[in-house]
Amino acid sequence: MPVFLTTTDDAFETQFKALLGAKREDSPDVDHIVAGIIADVRDRGDAAVIELTSKFDRLDLTPETMSFSPEDVDRIIADVPEAEREALQLAADRIRAYHERQLPQDESWTDASGATLGWRWTPVSAAGLYVPGGLASYPSSVLMNAIPAKVAGVPRLAITVPTPGGVVNPLVLLAARISGVDEIYRIGGAQAVAALAYGTGTIAPVDKITGPGNAFVAAAKRRVFGKVGIDMIAGPSEILVIADGDNDPDWIALDLMSQAEHDESAQSLLITTDAAFGRAVAEAVEKRLETLDRRAIAGASWRDYGAVITVRDLDEAAALSNRIAPEHLELCVADPDALCDKITHAGAIFLGKWTPEAIGDYVGGPNHVLPTARSARFSSGLSVMDFVKRTTLSKMTLQSLKAIGPAAEVLAQSESLEAHGLSVTARLKSLNE
Amino acid sequence: MPVFLTTTDDAFETQFKALLGAKREDSPDVDHIVAGIIADVRDRGDAAVIELTSKFDRLDLTPETMSFSPEDVDRIIADVPEAEREALQLAADRIRAYHERQLPQDESWTDASGATLGWRWTPVSAAGLYVPGGLASYPSSVLMNAIPAKVAGVPRLAITVPTPGGVVNPLVLLAARISGVDEIYRIGGAQAVAALAYGTGTIAPVDKITGPGNAFVAAAKRRVFGKVGIDMIAGPSEILVIADGDNDPDWIALDLMSQAEHDESAQSLLITTDAAFGRAVAEAVEKRLETLDRRAIAGASWRDYGAVITVRDLDEAAALSNRIAPEHLELCVADPDALCDKITHAGAIFLGKWTPEAIGDYVGGPNHVLPTARSARFSSGLSVMDFVKRTTLSKMTLQSLKAIGPAAEVLAQSESLEAHGLSVTARLKSLNE
Repeated sequence: MPVFLTTTDDAFETQFKALLGAKREDSPDVDHIVAGIIADVRDRGDAAVIELTSKFDRLDLTPETMSFSPEDVDRIIADVPEAEREALQLAADRIRAYHERQLPQDESWTDASGATLGWRWTPVSAAGLYVPGGLASYPSSVLMNAIPAKVAGVPRLAITVPTPGGVVNPLVLLAARISGVDEIYRIGGAQAVAALAYGTGTIAPVDKITGPGNAFVAAAKRRVFGKVGIDMIAGPSEILVIADGDNDPDWIALDLMSQAEHDESAQSLLITTDAAFGRAVAEAVEKRLETLDRRAIAGASWRDYGAVITVRDLDEAAALSNRIAPEHLELCVADPDALCDKITHAGAIFLGKWTPEAIGDYVGGPNHVLPTARSARFSSGLSVMDFVKRTTLSKMTLQSLKAIGPAAEVLAQSESLEAHGLSVTARLKSLNE
Repeated sequence: MPVFLTTTDDAFETQFKALLGAKREDSPDVDHIVAGIIADVRDRGDAAVIELTSKFDRLDLTPETMSFSPEDVDRIIADVPEAEREALQLAADRIRAYHERQLPQDESWTDASGATLGWRWTPVSAAGLYVPGGLASYPSSVLMNAIPAKVAGVPRLAITVPTPGGVVNPLVLLAARISGVDEIYRIGGAQAVAALAYGTGTIAPVDKITGPGNAFVAAAKRRVFGKVGIDMIAGPSEILVIADGDNDPDWIALDLMSQAEHDESAQSLLITTDAAFGRAVAEAVEKRLETLDRRAIAGASWRDYGAVITVRDLDEAAALSNRIAPEHLELCVADPDALCDKITHAGAIFLGKWTPEAIGDYVGGPNHVLPTARSARFSSGLSVMDFVKRTTLSKMTLQSLKAIGPAAEVLAQSESLEAHGLSVTARLKSLNE
């Protein structure tokens, strides 16, 4: 059973803090092993990648077979059923349409001093996307990472996906094809991250690496950060549902379970204004846990980290939600827009009872790579912005330098940076000659 | 003397790669010490901060004197000369005007399926700005960090600045006052970063920490990342000047020296289409190095990391510049706009001979916190965007769920995430009942 809390209890604040502070992830410390793998790939390139893939994935590659050729992909995706093909295409189209609106604008203007100022956005030249193999090999994640990169205009997008024993999920390759991915490598683990960051004889280095992975992949991403850009290191998934009593308990139970089934460390929370409804949802969860395929995982997550919190009113619900800063937030209340206005920290909000969070995982349009572990307080989900960077632009005329240069001279002097000041002085002096 | 390279030399590619790969920074490994300091501040709060400040800064604080009161600030800034006051205000006004244009827009639209989609930007609730003490205590950096945060709408902005022996730079406090900083603490080092991240009895925790610092501060920022957001970890400063022969060698020499004087590890590079001009600049540098106050630092930087590269034409200059991805790039050529169009990776570009880089350090308007060490390939300078985060919004109607829900069911099934699919199925089923 999950915990049941009520804000009117004296012990509530203590209980809520314990819930907020619960450590859900206990990553093994693999940093030492990963450091060795990265050094090996830097030193020996393809040879190291091939050896490590043979060892960890029981797959013997050569530089020639390291990537899937277009013909490989054609052959493997040929058998994907039409329904899945259409669903993936619909998802891709909607994700693309949403992300195209995120493309930032260049700006340029001339100010009163005559200075022309502005900025310009450009895509990274090459990005690498890590795709997990095995159970967590989700084609939807390929779309969610690859499409923003391509919308941003990244000219070269490479995927690495481990294929233990040579087995690959055809839908992953189809998602890559639909997204316009340029290169697909049959490698994984820290060796794949190292190959993307530093390059090998076969794989050219990239500038940015995104995508989820296990502890080895996460440690490798942390280590190559600085040499290349990385996206966030995602923790276990979370959902918070705020619901009034006017909902179907089974729907809310399924929404909670759709996070819980991801991972035993996932967290599903319900905040409700109606204590009886909260109990009804918990009962509906128990019922669903009798039959769900992933009931062992979902049940463990719900038992260890689940919670049902009864609040006095929706203002209190919003205040608690803002302290939680959830990755996913469902607002199943009569006026979800009004409640939404009170939310300051959340990765993604799903408004109203017709918007189960699962829609956002696949076909809604917004990205499903979102900040976890309360990091929505200071960070955003994956977007086109992760694949572009801004260059600021300044152009002075001699008039504008005359107008604002003297202030720069004063400040340079106050900071004891003489050459800074002189670089302005020399130019201003030429005007008086 | 710096190195002189020419692209027509057979050895050029090897020499250029060596220049690109030169390791300029050798940070001491203080991670172990920093881990202990952070643990101590988490455990003992104010008491630990007070002890560490006494030990490292020779300053005895109490919880009451840990921050500068508004009266302290009034008293200390009273003696700032009018010229410096005006220069700082001019800089602040220009920086604010530039950054106000960066405020991102919320979006909301309804698509063909009837789904309402969009996103919303909100500021972080609290930000902390680390300001170094001593020599590198630059008031301009206070403006560059604090103003974007306040433009973003951050309601609570705290500064920490170490005051060894109780000494503080009055201009730092004035810059904080002008920027609208809310709290100023007399602490520094890893203990200040820990206090901002985890909070103490006196200091409330923040959600984001920005600002430059020494190896201890950098290691502490890396360690608290995840608990809070951080900005980039900046390396030594760099400038690349692309100049044709029609420039005053002394101006370009001063521009190169205005980076070199920052730090012995700074790097100043000149790319020119005119070999004789390149030699003239090198001679002008030597001349300036006879008299510059910071000639020891600037001379070491120029000798160890400086370079003059002669190219065939400006296309070649642009291609090399894009491989360097410089923090600061000056385009001192007849048509800087045309050359600018060919630049894909740079933190900030300064166009034309009337725009010395020092203008950008103080009064231009754009931010002077910029990506170093080739990270302009994948990251941007500090901006309003560092203090806001995006929440994505989705609202389905029953019509839109009918239209796109079935595709989500198919994809959920293909990923073996049964509850995901059922959360859609249960809702769609109710429509048929």
